[in-house]
Amino acid sequence: MTVLILTGEEDVTADMVVVHLNASGVPVVRLDPADLPGGVALSGEYVHGSFRGHLSSGGRLVSIEGLRSVWVRRPGTPAARAAMPSAWLTEESAQALYGMLRGCGARWMNHPDAARRARHKPWQLRLAQRCGLPVPATLITTFPQAAQEFAERYPDLVVKPVSGAHPQDPPRAVPTSRVAPDADFSAVAFGPTLLQRRIAKRADIRLTVVGDRMLAARKECDPESEVDVRFAVSDAPWRPVDMPPRTAERVRSYVRTADLAYGAFDFAEDADGTWWFLECNQSGQFGFVEVETGQPIARGIAEWLAQPAARRQARVNGANTAVP
Amino acid sequence: MTVLILTGEEDVTADMVVVHLNASGVPVVRLDPADLPGGVALSGEYVHGSFRGHLSSGGRLVSIEGLRSVWVRRPGTPAARAAMPSAWLTEESAQALYGMLRGCGARWMNHPDAARRARHKPWQLRLAQRCGLPVPATLITTFPQAAQEFAERYPDLVVKPVSGAHPQDPPRAVPTSRVAPDADFSAVAFGPTLLQRRIAKRADIRLTVVGDRMLAARKECDPESEVDVRFAVSDAPWRPVDMPPRTAERVRSYVRTADLAYGAFDFAEDADGTWWFLECNQSGQFGFVEVETGQPIARGIAEWLAQPAARRQARVNGANTAVP
Repeated sequence: MTVLILTGEEDVTADMVVVHLNASGVPVVRLDPADLPGGVALSGEYVHGSFRGHLSSGGRLVSIEGLRSVWVRRPGTPAARAAMPSAWLTEESAQALYGMLRGCGARWMNHPDAARRARHKPWQLRLAQRCGLPVPATLITTFPQAAQEFAERYPDLVVKPVSGAHPQDPPRAVPTSRVAPDADFSAVAFGPTLLQRRIAKRADIRLTVVGDRMLAARKECDPESEVDVRFAVSDAPWRPVDMPPRTAERVRSYVRTADLAYGAFDFAEDADGTWWFLECNQSGQFGFVEVETGQPIARGIAEWLAQPAARRQARVNGANTAVP
Repeated sequence: MTVLILTGEEDVTADMVVVHLNASGVPVVRLDPADLPGGVALSGEYVHGSFRGHLSSGGRLVSIEGLRSVWVRRPGTPAARAAMPSAWLTEESAQALYGMLRGCGARWMNHPDAARRARHKPWQLRLAQRCGLPVPATLITTFPQAAQEFAERYPDLVVKPVSGAHPQDPPRAVPTSRVAPDADFSAVAFGPTLLQRRIAKRADIRLTVVGDRMLAARKECDPESEVDVRFAVSDAPWRPVDMPPRTAERVRSYVRTADLAYGAFDFAEDADGTWWFLECNQSGQFGFVEVETGQPIARGIAEWLAQPAARRQARVNGANTAVP
């Protein structure tokens, strides 16, 4: 049975995983939905109560029912490279491709529904709270008065986007920034604003979860330095670190409820050693952590993808959760 | 506890439901996400492990934790009517609104994830097959050769879009059409094409499912007439009809697996009385059926929405399915 990887042509992170899959002799088909129709073709037949479907890419034909897993890595927009692209063709191609894949018995990393849900920051914060992970006091609001009152209660705040990266092409990360003590919050009425108590952190934590495995890495920092690790200049390297056992349980509960097979958690470690939940990115990059720490993340992903497909019936509604 | 209805201002179908909710004294807040930020405002605070959130619309304030149900009727695009609309503001507003609502304990008609999944026609066909509903032989393909061979096996075919309505504004329905016997299928390579064996139907069936209730309606037609009821000129009225008991079981299995609280099924009834599954529209209109048949669909929706909210913990991952 075959592993299907949905991603663009230039994706060195996917390459890292493919190396492991090839080494273990697991068949892999890699394609970019942007090439459908064109370099990628599909066909599915619903006759006499059963389904037979195929995908072809680069001259290779694979049975949809013969997929063991689907890795939704960085897929392009369906039909983006078609001869005559249009919103309509994109919609038709997306529905055809994902509609067929959703009906198959493969395991997903991550399932599109779980992925979509997991991107919602307000939902993440609520789930983290419910799982017992410490969450810095946070406000998301369009009420200037609510922002003002929150800033009086928590004078040391950061502001960050609700939705993550700015949706331009390519997407641009919006840095988390400190809020000045005399900030005027009247502009909050013009767009939802996320304010969060700043954690005076002594380290950033990146926790990569692959199936049941958890690999934590730590990068020391100056408590008064730049708040956003992505924009900080730091000589400290990422180093593997053990997880506090209770945090491991709570994270396990998070990924199980979120139905995620992969997740990259960001925590801020304070002076007491507490890990404060900042976010969980269901498609977070891991290459930089693997390179610096030597943690076998790509191998873990390859092994997860290589596991046999689960029972078909349990997967009709798409989730990776086992159905009793 | 309050019922939240997400829809545009002019929605007479929603009005029909609101009349019933008002009559039974259930508090209702109706808002259009297009008015966020602006006429609609929101605020949510995550402090000390708990969440307190509010929505305001037209001067009314409602607690998010106090919602008993959310009816996703015909919501506008978030921030579409903002003073300075942008893709970024839409994304921020959508994530803030739906991210908070997804974390609350309300029941959904329909949950956004279930709704999104249920729109995929290939997924619908597979699920219908698995539930034992008769599905006309169908091919979805970008291979001209596969289309040609299918047409030789099933000479009497219709062609229809994979994805439903054309995504222009307002969306335009694309009619189902018969395929000429000498059709040239070479253009199939330029876009996924859905071919389906034509059912020589003596009636169209519209089955409206609201929670556990099923209301079937039937409209007689000439077997050789226009295949698409939406474009046919017919004097026959919609009339209530009893469901074959086995069909009811199978439909129940479909909506349960799809996790839908509402669904409008279209079937074609052939000369033998068999109901052939054509599609299930999770947001299908029902006003025209209610008006012609007198079936109490709006009341059924109002009663479903008015039921008490389910246990909070069971809802954290969003589904309406009970968690044991």
